[in-house]
Amino acid sequence: MAKVSIEKRILSENDRIAIENRKTFADAGVLVLNIISSPGSGKTTLLEATLDRIARELAVLVIEGDVSTERDMDRVRARGAGGIQINTGGGCHLSAKMIREVLGELDLESADIVFIENVGNLICPSTYDLGEDVRLVLLSATEGDDKPMKYPSIFHEASLAILNKTDLLPHLIYDTEKVMKEIAVLNPNCEILRLSALQGEGMDTWIDWLREKLAAKRGEQTSGARRGT
Amino acid sequence: MAKVSIEKRILSENDRIAIENRKTFADAGVLVLNIISSPGSGKTTLLEATLDRIARELAVLVIEGDVSTERDMDRVRARGAGGIQINTGGGCHLSAKMIREVLGELDLESADIVFIENVGNLICPSTYDLGEDVRLVLLSATEGDDKPMKYPSIFHEASLAILNKTDLLPHLIYDTEKVMKEIAVLNPNCEILRLSALQGEGMDTWIDWLREKLAAKRGEQTSGARRGT
Repeated sequence: MAKVSIEKRILSENDRIAIENRKTFADAGVLVLNIISSPGSGKTTLLEATLDRIARELAVLVIEGDVSTERDMDRVRARGAGGIQINTGGGCHLSAKMIREVLGELDLESADIVFIENVGNLICPSTYDLGEDVRLVLLSATEGDDKPMKYPSIFHEASLAILNKTDLLPHLIYDTEKVMKEIAVLNPNCEILRLSALQGEGMDTWIDWLREKLAAKRGEQTSGARRGT
Repeated sequence: MAKVSIEKRILSENDRIAIENRKTFADAGVLVLNIISSPGSGKTTLLEATLDRIARELAVLVIEGDVSTERDMDRVRARGAGGIQINTGGGCHLSAKMIREVLGELDLESADIVFIENVGNLICPSTYDLGEDVRLVLLSATEGDDKPMKYPSIFHEASLAILNKTDLLPHLIYDTEKVMKEIAVLNPNCEILRLSALQGEGMDTWIDWLREKLAAKRGEQTSGARRGT
């Protein structure tokens, strides 16, 4: 009797819910980014600077993940974003289920982009798919240039890495090229941008990247809709 | 029949092993510090700067916790510390069990101080007792002044908070007094020091603090031994 090899992929509960979330986001035609970094790398400051540049023409929702406080949600609301705060009460990462639970409270149909700001943690959130289009890892130049190899998982999983706080580079011992090379070794498909969310350098390139991604997503959707007819 | 209230504290496996570790450390007469921070706050740089100041007169062991690489262990070995690297292979914190497993490989009897550098993570390591004398939370001024209330657990648990990278304060928007106040609200017993491990300011006060703690620990032990006779 021939031996038949059957490959069966067992999906975790998180993966199954992430697939549902991804379909919900796709049906609404929104681009979704899951932003992951250490505490204090500048996730919220990046969102503030991004909102200052796009909130007048694009509808942006933010899902804020934090252990405690609504501080980050207050900051992005003040810059014109809608959205919701998730307090994990000690939990060290967001999960697809936490995202699914708040989707009913968001007006996805009217939105263009959803940013999910994950809990400040470079380890635990890295392998939890939330249903996003882009898993974005944010690094701060002040954290030292040895981080990719020390925290490899998030660099394996990310499709975009942003090096923030480049305005402080003149005051730091930091080898940018080393960081770029380490990321490329871990994940040759990971795109890399450099910017200072606070001072503005590099922000135009990031906004262009975001617009292109949004246009590509809409192109995919239109072409998918055409194929569907 | 009188109602008798019996308070029974159920210890977790981690707590039970931490008690054993604490006894092992006490029997060897070593002072043990568990250093917790975000990735890139300067834990290893603080150890390097500390070793430069004490390694000639005190025997220092370091237990290095990292998801991946031996980079930090290489750095502290170069400054005169003995010790061992624990790679968690994805695990987001050290546990009392991981510490117990390496104790046999360390010459505790000849050591004065053991530094345990936890995995870079401000959340998960906060509630895992390893058997240390001092739980030390390290903050970097570059991470922003909103961290204590956003990550309250580690500030509840720490007996010492160190604000590092004070040399960068002139280039940052950072309200040091706000941070001090938030820590005091979360934990009035938490001592606070400020320093720049890289540039040296505040290092003398930290080294004095460490020496006093070591002397106090030895005083306790002597007095305990006296009581025992």
